[in-house]
Amino acid sequence: MSTPRRSSDAAQLEATRDAQLAVRVALAATVEPEDKALMPLLQGHDPFTAWELVRTNPEGRFDRCVARVERLRLDDIVARTAALGARIVIPGDDEWPCGVDDLERPPFCLWVTGPARLDAVCRRSVSIVGARAATAYGTQVAGELAFGLANRGFAVVSGGAHGIDTASHRGALAADGTTIAAMACGIDIAYPAANSAPLAEIARSGAIVTELPPGSAPQKQRFLSRNRLIAALTPGTVVVEAGLRSGSRATASAARRLHRVLAAVPGPVTSPASAGTHQLIREGGAVLVTDVDECADLLGSIGDDLAPVKREQPSVADTLGDVESRLLDALPVVRGTGVDRLAVSAGLAPREVMRALAVLLGAGLAERVDSGWRRTRDQIR
Amino acid sequence: MSTPRRSSDAAQLEATRDAQLAVRVALAATVEPEDKALMPLLQGHDPFTAWELVRTNPEGRFDRCVARVERLRLDDIVARTAALGARIVIPGDDEWPCGVDDLERPPFCLWVTGPARLDAVCRRSVSIVGARAATAYGTQVAGELAFGLANRGFAVVSGGAHGIDTASHRGALAADGTTIAAMACGIDIAYPAANSAPLAEIARSGAIVTELPPGSAPQKQRFLSRNRLIAALTPGTVVVEAGLRSGSRATASAARRLHRVLAAVPGPVTSPASAGTHQLIREGGAVLVTDVDECADLLGSIGDDLAPVKREQPSVADTLGDVESRLLDALPVVRGTGVDRLAVSAGLAPREVMRALAVLLGAGLAERVDSGWRRTRDQIR
Repeated sequence: MSTPRRSSDAAQLEATRDAQLAVRVALAATVEPEDKALMPLLQGHDPFTAWELVRTNPEGRFDRCVARVERLRLDDIVARTAALGARIVIPGDDEWPCGVDDLERPPFCLWVTGPARLDAVCRRSVSIVGARAATAYGTQVAGELAFGLANRGFAVVSGGAHGIDTASHRGALAADGTTIAAMACGIDIAYPAANSAPLAEIARSGAIVTELPPGSAPQKQRFLSRNRLIAALTPGTVVVEAGLRSGSRATASAARRLHRVLAAVPGPVTSPASAGTHQLIREGGAVLVTDVDECADLLGSIGDDLAPVKREQPSVADTLGDVESRLLDALPVVRGTGVDRLAVSAGLAPREVMRALAVLLGAGLAERVDSGWRRTRDQIR
Repeated sequence: MSTPRRSSDAAQLEATRDAQLAVRVALAATVEPEDKALMPLLQGHDPFTAWELVRTNPEGRFDRCVARVERLRLDDIVARTAALGARIVIPGDDEWPCGVDDLERPPFCLWVTGPARLDAVCRRSVSIVGARAATAYGTQVAGELAFGLANRGFAVVSGGAHGIDTASHRGALAADGTTIAAMACGIDIAYPAANSAPLAEIARSGAIVTELPPGSAPQKQRFLSRNRLIAALTPGTVVVEAGLRSGSRATASAARRLHRVLAAVPGPVTSPASAGTHQLIREGGAVLVTDVDECADLLGSIGDDLAPVKREQPSVADTLGDVESRLLDALPVVRGTGVDRLAVSAGLAPREVMRALAVLLGAGLAERVDSGWRRTRDQIR
């Protein structure tokens, strides 16, 4: 496999998928995701022209790619990908998750491993992200949300990190649901290393995805770029616990910029781990969510997943009319009282008292004793 | 003291405060607050005409007041009020808290005891209300908010009930601040009885207020009417813990209807005691607040009480530029690496690597060892 050097319009139209794949892999291997200096130079160019620019380095504007271009071995990357049991997905492929095209700088291509087909599962999916330094409360809530949403057929996308990410992946796995880990390193690297077991399980049943070629190490700015990918893959992002400075807030910003659903779970105001989610709700345009129903309501198709309106069971007393309710309040608990006194204490006409007493008697809320009327014992609030 | 029977415009204009007081006390003693049947009949009438209607009961439309009108002893009520060391405040008095005039059905008059002057303290005040069945979390947060807001000169208004109300009153008292209990019973009744000690303390340093004459028992609908009073007395209401069915939600609705500030404190989504506040934030137009600063910001005069923007302290690494930050990420931790390899791993031009290394060296973030460049040990994230 060699890198194509044609750039005329006619050549592009003839370009086979192999040619597309070659330039896209070449770009992914030489240009950092979201490189602030190079992005404006590549913006608006088709991948063939973009690669031509990077490769030929006109006026030294792509100097920072030179060392990588010199070392680039496309065949090695493709062979290594295959040896890892992974695949490379590019725009135009059936599996390409179109949501990422909404990004200002979409990935050149994606490395994917696992049985889940990205395009299909991302259609009904949710990102659940949050702090690595999560509390027991946060991991419990994230796990329960992931479990419940996976049970309703939502794929759960997260970042494979410690804390909320791991709890979310595990929750989805526990529900035999689909979960996807979007990584900030090559698909051959299990990061964090302590998570290699759950990551292997995700690769077996769901998918691991990254825009970085095999061998790429996890680096700080790659996490930020990866976060935009998480937001773009799914129709909505739920943040469970985030400090005031956290990567999850970057994912949230990306979701908002992409006009995706953005939700956040509150927590105790005494917990710094919830300070970021509270700020997202206060200022970041996030919707406060407390349970699976509310998340599904936000994410799902209208009608399908509408959250049931929360209300407590009404008691018998709740079904009473205004007058009956007032009389019930005025009824004594121990010694009975006559209609005249009840009219005073309830502020009702005697005939209203009589009529209401009949209703309360029928409902088992009032009883007649020697001294008059009183409330039934077991109805006392 | 007798009840005036004049209703002509001229007579009203001549009405002395005593005459106003008499009809207002008579109305308060015979018409339940917010009586659904009588309210429309009295709407739009001045108190003299209103009392005339209630007293004369045309076409039996005020039948439900007859028993009370017959027993009415105005002089007794006034004497009893005085004996309790309380006062009656009516519209037009300096002490009348004008906020209550925004209510659809303002109180006819208010019974007040305690040194605080209602009109003055309500101007800079906050209602803090919530569940009686509060959790330790809720009472802690309510107490801290009340303490902090009292410290900033806000009078704290609440309902004198168990749970959040008591925690709020106590927090304000602990700060030597002013606190006001609005009651759903006569000013002579300490309800709940277990709260008689804090209620006495509130009466000594702040104020107790009610629209019900002495001797009135606490009844369910009176609590709802009292809640509208709490909302109307203050520029803003903060709800700390509320179940899905709770009186605090009635206070919140009243605050919203009155265009007052409405805020709610979140809590763990696993706690039913916070379900009501979460619902208020989701659907009830309440602003999520987490601390005293944010409450003061909402309530205070602009500029005076702006909440400081929350941010964590930036680290040295946060002050780095894009290129330096990328190089720092790419720098190995143990064995040093040469500039060429760094150019590849960071995706930078060699001259960019050199320039960035100088910056990192100066910041103490990178060091030179035999094998090349590496990250300084104590800077590892």
